[in-house]
Order: sequence, then C-alpha cells, then structure tokens
Amino acid sequence: MNTSVVMKFGGSSVETIEKMRNVADRIIRKKETFINIVVVVSAMGKTTNQLLELAKQASKYPSKREVDMLISTGEQVSISLLSMILNEKGFETVALTGSQAGIKTGGIHTKNKILDIQPSKIQKHLEAGKIVVVAGFQGINEEGDITTLGRGGSDTTAVALAAKLGFLAEIYTDVEGIYGVDPRLYPKAKKLDVISYEEMKEMAFLGAKVMEPRSIEIGHRYGVEIYVASSMSEASGTMIKEVKTMEEKSITGLSVSEKVMMVTIKHYPNKAIDIANLFVQLAENEVNVDMISQTPSSNGHLTLAFTASADDLEAINEVLERILKIYPNVVTDKNVNVAKISVVGTGMRTQTGVAAQLFKLLAENDIEFKLVTTSEISISYTIDKIHIKKAVEVISDHFGL
Amino acid sequence: MNTSVVMKFGGSSVETIEKMRNVADRIIRKKETFINIVVVVSAMGKTTNQLLELAKQASKYPSKREVDMLISTGEQVSISLLSMILNEKGFETVALTGSQAGIKTGGIHTKNKILDIQPSKIQKHLEAGKIVVVAGFQGINEEGDITTLGRGGSDTTAVALAAKLGFLAEIYTDVEGIYGVDPRLYPKAKKLDVISYEEMKEMAFLGAKVMEPRSIEIGHRYGVEIYVASSMSEASGTMIKEVKTMEEKSITGLSVSEKVMMVTIKHYPNKAIDIANLFVQLAENEVNVDMISQTPSSNGHLTLAFTASADDLEAINEVLERILKIYPNVVTDKNVNVAKISVVGTGMRTQTGVAAQLFKLLAENDIEFKLVTTSEISISYTIDKIHIKKAVEVISDHFGL
Repeated sequence: MNTSVVMKFGGSSVETIEKMRNVADRIIRKKETFINIVVVVSAMGKTTNQLLELAKQASKYPSKREVDMLISTGEQVSISLLSMILNEKGFETVALTGSQAGIKTGGIHTKNKILDIQPSKIQKHLEAGKIVVVAGFQGINEEGDITTLGRGGSDTTAVALAAKLGFLAEIYTDVEGIYGVDPRLYPKAKKLDVISYEEMKEMAFLGAKVMEPRSIEIGHRYGVEIYVASSMSEASGTMIKEVKTMEEKSITGLSVSEKVMMVTIKHYPNKAIDIANLFVQLAENEVNVDMISQTPSSNGHLTLAFTASADDLEAINEVLERILKIYPNVVTDKNVNVAKISVVGTGMRTQTGVAAQLFKLLAENDIEFKLVTTSEISISYTIDKIHIKKAVEVISDHFGL
Repeated sequence: MNTSVVMKFGGSSVETIEKMRNVADRIIRKKETFINIVVVVSAMGKTTNQLLELAKQASKYPSKREVDMLISTGEQVSISLLSMILNEKGFETVALTGSQAGIKTGGIHTKNKILDIQPSKIQKHLEAGKIVVVAGFQGINEEGDITTLGRGGSDTTAVALAAKLGFLAEIYTDVEGIYGVDPRLYPKAKKLDVISYEEMKEMAFLGAKVMEPRSIEIGHRYGVEIYVASSMSEASGTMIKEVKTMEEKSITGLSVSEKVMMVTIKHYPNKAIDIANLFVQLAENEVNVDMISQTPSSNGHLTLAFTASADDLEAINEVLERILKIYPNVVTDKNVNVAKISVVGTGMRTQTGVAAQLFKLLAENDIEFKLVTTSEISISYTIDKIHIKKAVEVISDHFGL
C-alpha cells in the first residue's frame, strides 16, 4: 500500500487561523497511517483577489512579472502559518515556497505551466521525518523570477507533485466530492464514488468548478489517482481514475455554466478569409470562443453565432467595434441571458441515441436551445437562463444522475 | 560626481498606494540627474506587525524560520506594487526580493546579518536601464531559506548595497533629518547638516529612532556617506559621514529613551561568581543589560542596579524568580518610571569638564539621577520620567543644540 500522499487544501479551507487548525488536525490524523505527507495549500480565502485589486490600483496594466511576485505572497503566508500550527501541535514541519520546492515553470507570467519538479529538497525534509508544506499555484522560471500557474494552479501543483514523487493525491475542497449534477441545482444529485479522468476533464472544461482540467490532465497522463473530498467532513469522496468497465452508464454527469454570453453577427461576408479574420481577432484579444455555429443567408452573407465567457465582454466589444468599422452593414447582438448545459459520459462512445434522447427531452419540455456542440463524450446546449432549473431536472431524472 | 544612488523608503512612506505614488515621483525626479537608481523599500505601514500578530495566533512559539518566511512577504508586496507604479509612470523597472538581489545572510533567523551581496542580477538590470526595486530587511541563507535582518533591517540593506555597488546612500524617512535633540521634546532643536558616523552610532544606540546603529556601522566601515531626509518634503536633510574638524562642539546631540526600566537587587552576595551568574542568566534570557552600578553593603552583601529595555520585563521577571529561589534574602525592586538621557559628542574626547558641567546643570535644577555611565563620546543618566522635559531643556539650552 502506498503510504505517501500529497494533500491539497484550497483557499476556503485555510481562510482563517481557526480553519487552518482544522486542516492541521486532518493532516495529523492522516499521519497516523501515512509515512510521507506533503501538503499543498492555496492563499487564505480571498487573498489573491485582494492582492490583484491592489495591483489594479497601482497600475492599469501592471507588469505580469510583478503581479506574480505580488500574488505569490498569498501562499507564502498560508504555508508559513500552517507550518507553525502543525509545529505547535508537536510535528516537525517545513514550509517551502514553489521556488524552494523545486517547481520549475516556463518563462511566461500569470498563466504558467510546470515544466519539471526537482524534488530533492522535499525528499530531504521527508526523510528527516517532516511534514512538508508546499505553496501551491507558484513556481520559478529559468530567470529566477517567481511565476504563477493561473486559476486552479494549486490543484496542478498537488497532482504534479504526486506524479513526480509517486504519491497519492488528495484534493480537499468545500464540496464532498464530485456529483453528477451540482446539488445546488438538483438536490437529488448523487455523489459519484468514481469518475474517469476523461469524464472529469470534460466536466471541468464544461464548467464544473470542483477541479481544473489541467490537474486532471496531469493525473491522467501520469496515472495519479486523485481523491476529491470535503475538508470539513469525514464523508467519503470521489476517486478520479482510469475506469474500465464492461457496461457504462451513458451519461455520468451534467454541468451548467451560467457565465456565458452568446454573440450573433448577421450579414457577415461569407468568405473564408473574413470569417478567419473575425476569429483571429477574437483570439488575439484573448477571447476563448467556445461554441460556434454559422448559417448562410442570402447575397453571399451569413449569420455567425458563438459563445464565450461573460468575463470577456469587454474584449469582445473591442473586436466587434473594429468589425463594424470594416463591415458597416453587419448587425451584432450580444445575449448574456443564456447558459450552457452539458451532459458528459464515456458511455456515449458505445451507446447511440443519447443525443436523440436529449433532443426529445428538451422538446417535450418546451426548452428551446440556440447552439449545440458535441464531442466524443459530451453534448452541450445553449439555452435561456430561465430554463436552467427545468432542463437540469428533466435530464437528471431521465438519466438517474 | 557619483550619479548612482541607493534610495531607501521606510514603511510609513509606502503605507498606501497613494503614498507610493509620491515616492515614485521622488524617484523619478532623482532619475533626471542620476543614472543608476536602486530603491530599497520596507513593508507597507504596519504590515510586519500584523503578520507577526498572525504568527502569534498560529503558535505561541512560532518557528523562526517560518516567521521569516511569513514576514518577508511584506516587502515582497511593497516592491511589486512600487515597481508597477514606476512602470505605469513610464519607467522600466524590476522588483527583486532579497534572495533575487543576491543578499546572502548567515544561518539564523529573525535577527540575521548580511554576510555578502552578489550584485550581478542588480547590475544586469541597471545596465539595461531599469530602476531596480529591492526588498529591504530580507535575504537568503546557505540553505536557501528566507531570512530577515531584524529591526531597521531595510536601512542595513540600503547601506550595504550602497557599499557593495559604490553608490551613494539616501535614507528617506518621516523626519527631516537628524536633530541634536528630538524636536518633540525640545521645539527649538536644530537640524544638523552633518553628523559623524561615531556620533550617529552613539545617538542611535542611545535611543534616537531615526536610524539603526548597524547600518551606520556599515556606512562607517565602508565609507558610505548616508544622507537622511524627509520622504515628504524637499527640505535638506543631514549627511552622516567622516567629520574631521579642528574645533568640535563638545556636545552634538542629546537623546532620551523612555522605554527603560531599572532593576535594583539588594542583599546580593558580594562574590564574583554570584554576580557573574546573575548577568549570565540575564544574557541567556536575551535581556540586553545597559547601565550597571554596584555598591557594596555590609556583611559581604551588595546592592546591584541595572537598566534594561522595558520590553524585557517578562524575561527579567523569570530571572529574578530564579534568583529569589537561590538567594531567598535578596530584595528586588523594579522601576519603570525612569528614563535614560544621554549626551553625545566626539568633542568630549578633547574637551574636559563636560561631565562636570552636566552634573552642575542637573544639580542646579534639582534633577536627581540614579545611574551614570560614560563612553568615550557620551554620558548617560537615569532620571525619573517626570524630569525629562526639564533636563532636555536645560541641557539643550546650555549646549546650544
């Protein structure tokens, strides 16, 4: 049995000294049966956002290198304090920044990737019997500059460390595991005991907020089984791992993303170069376009519709203004009253007719959808926000989520 | 002319983003005539104390290594923000932590010393035309652990950098320079244009809060002239440097320390070993004993009196309790209603009679003193706190401070 583990605690679990003491007790109980424990923590509560707010006050476009230096202090504070608390409770501990933990990243800032981990310092402290507390979310690049890993970076740190060290990975969060449907939307939702990497990745990409897809990707690639559970309760959680079964459920989960906007562009020239131009400009403005549909209309023009994160509103507006200058006849429309509802299941690969069942369900319940996209193991619909509740209920009931 | 400078700004000068903008303007004005600018900053306002408060909540006796990791985030935040602000104003800048700036310290924590500075990274950025913003107060030890330099550490960082780089040192603070007497105690006090390293060191040791003695010591050893001025006004400040004049004022400055306590121990055995034992125990409890007097009394006993910082009250109590167990007949008394008043001047070396003049002044004004100590260039008296104002006035008037 593997008696070595990386335990990760997010910002809400270490929001206050009091909550940190609970986290410490949790770690100490784990120490009864485990030999090597590495703990990865995020910044306390909303610290990262508060620091970003300060950066905004300092500069409209703050240097990303300095933003990383600034926000990385958040985890440095939490690892120091958690290490002190564990120490106070009688355990040998050591806190390590991302740099000290040997977490090497690429050169870019604020959205970096882990290139490699040089774990010699972690291993030295583990061999000395210490609980090693590592700052999540951060690393160091070749220049010796502090870098950060973007949203969900602490999960990435934890899973990457588990992969490098050959440890188990346990992600403690404010939910009790992974649900087929968000229990806030569908109170009857069932917690999953197991979910495959693939399904979890789709779920994560599609808006389930439990874990970032990047960390699942690393877990998948290196075969790290990731256990997700509540930091507050002892209830059993969900294991994310390779699942190979003879019979699969057609649908494992349903996720809803409300931070969506749909943009419709009418009378746009129906030429490949013009269409490409639109999406190149959106990409250059860092708009992450999600679902796309295009319908030809008369006179060599077409109607384009796409969805993106509602956070990108400003960036999208900039692009649309430029587009209107080039093509003055174009008519644009932005709709933020939409949501994306997605169903995920590796079973879709082998079971046909899932899409048909879904179309039928929506039609029977008078839920119109605007855009549809499908992947090998998922189907997503854009619907009006007012229909979310009903859509979640009928789909969850039908597929027993 | 030296066109390279290290400018240091303390916590009160960078307390808010708004104050940081003033600091940035100050730096930018300097850039009009100077080529190479290194800026050293402390943590914003009371940040360090707030972080120490968190540490106290986390653990009664927090690990000093983790305390350093925790409090060093304070400067990391301020350098990031100041760099962003300078950048916003159109200047190329880079923020460097103590570690990145190559500031190497010894192994101990929270009160470390700079062993060496490896300035290659700073020099590289200066050559690229950047304003380099360095975190004061912090460094890195051989283990790669973050260390801090104790109170006044940012002054030490600034002067040590100036020494290593061959730059001028400018310390910007919340006073307009060095005064012979604290203007809050003696409104007629005159600002000094120049003060010698030696006098400044005595003044600093004796309680003047403008600069830490350690940084003056480094300036003295490496011949770095240190300019002290207000961060808020353009008024000229005070230069601390080697002063060689034919005729010296007998007294340059007067300082008052109110955070003093006097301990009297009566009926203590008059044996060298017992006396040594007392002071060894005080030292082991990290009590910094300042003035000492001993008076033999009858029967092989004596009366010992010493002063120490009022902050050491708890540590002193511990020692006194132990002493009372060993020597039950001893009678102890602690008096916190005392202050130490000191006069400083290199002129005392060549001019006799300064002590006599002082004794006479105090006697004429009915100011009793309890303990006296003298160094080559200073005389200190312990007096009752209620006499501070009068003593400051008569001495300052007499010597024209």
